[in-house]
Amino acid sequence: MLVMGRNVAIDLLKKNKKVRKVIIQEGFDDKNIISLVEKNNLVVETKSKREIDNLCPGVNQGIILDIPDYKYMELNDFLNTEDDFVVLLDHLEDPHNLGAIIRTCEAAGVKSIILPRDRQVQVNATVMKTSVGTLDNVNLVSVSNLVNTIERLKEAGYWVVGTALENSIDYREIDYSGKIALVIGNEGKGISELVAKKCDFLAKIPMYGETNSLNASVAAGIMIYEVIRNRK
Amino acid sequence: MLVMGRNVAIDLLKKNKKVRKVIIQEGFDDKNIISLVEKNNLVVETKSKREIDNLCPGVNQGIILDIPDYKYMELNDFLNTEDDFVVLLDHLEDPHNLGAIIRTCEAAGVKSIILPRDRQVQVNATVMKTSVGTLDNVNLVSVSNLVNTIERLKEAGYWVVGTALENSIDYREIDYSGKIALVIGNEGKGISELVAKKCDFLAKIPMYGETNSLNASVAAGIMIYEVIRNRK
Repeated sequence: MLVMGRNVAIDLLKKNKKVRKVIIQEGFDDKNIISLVEKNNLVVETKSKREIDNLCPGVNQGIILDIPDYKYMELNDFLNTEDDFVVLLDHLEDPHNLGAIIRTCEAAGVKSIILPRDRQVQVNATVMKTSVGTLDNVNLVSVSNLVNTIERLKEAGYWVVGTALENSIDYREIDYSGKIALVIGNEGKGISELVAKKCDFLAKIPMYGETNSLNASVAAGIMIYEVIRNRK
Repeated sequence: MLVMGRNVAIDLLKKNKKVRKVIIQEGFDDKNIISLVEKNNLVVETKSKREIDNLCPGVNQGIILDIPDYKYMELNDFLNTEDDFVVLLDHLEDPHNLGAIIRTCEAAGVKSIILPRDRQVQVNATVMKTSVGTLDNVNLVSVSNLVNTIERLKEAGYWVVGTALENSIDYREIDYSGKIALVIGNEGKGISELVAKKCDFLAKIPMYGETNSLNASVAAGIMIYEVIRNRK
């Protein structure tokens, strides 16, 4: 997997993560990164700006690392943890949102995020960049079917809370004291009908404008901090 | 100003906003957008994917509109409003964050956002895309100096709340019942020292992980919903 950007590079190089190869842009002169690369004795390739931008479109800052693909956790292994709060993503599309949610979970002490294998953004260069070094402290649990997963979670004693505009109650009126599985919906479509049907509670963040939705990572942040509000 | 993406295009074309020119990629076939363009009788240019990507890097979806530059509000005009809650941005850099904060403010009923003229991301194609049609309902107030602006706000009776990790109190312990000006800090550096000194309260969102900061738009969302928690 290719990842990009100075902060990501510094984080990975400092943590002594397995880096297969470093690709830098002609004229790259960040002394800190260059000395970390030399200290780790890594293979370095130099490429033109155009080649770098083709490899990693976006703000790559002239530095790309080739690292092993992210290793997801299995659902059974997650169910063996003692986590009492888990976040589920219902087919998110935007890597900035996934990265920001990973970062919020890490900050809030949420140890695991469950996400479907298909039609869902996976860990990529933008996710690594947006989550700024927090991915190490959070488990991403890959599942093939979210509805079946929710049933497994319910059997394991979790209360499932989704966010929805209709048939929902104010997010501040829900009792989050038990084991909680919080579902965050897709950016455009929200949570799917089948998933909504499986939820024990549907929560609504009140809105007072003309538009009726928040950015997915902002909504996730508000909900996550509401769940931990009376816990810690 | 060039803006990009299908949702932005549909929003602007439907609202009959002044569109100077439409630039589409060869083979662009969104019938909804094409019929809106024809209905508005607009000048259309067709370009190659490469030319389109050069004009608007990022997810442009093959559609770019050329519209008049965004018109900012003056501070004096803002002070004449009766707003009792305003958000200030202390030199944000990331257009995704600005877009998401505009969207959160619109949803939360916050009418105005104050932002410095320099070293601060301004309204651009990515901001338009991330704020998805909410910019019309929020005033962006452009100021030359944030510290002076905070003094003017204090004279006008606002309590100024910033977010900071040090010398700060839990964000849930602050009384937000008066006129509130909420300062959101830069993505890397947080709020500046001079601004922090001017704040009446410094608020901390508690964190339990290894990293000690949230994405700026997520932190803004949590704080904004905390302020309106007991108001509406």
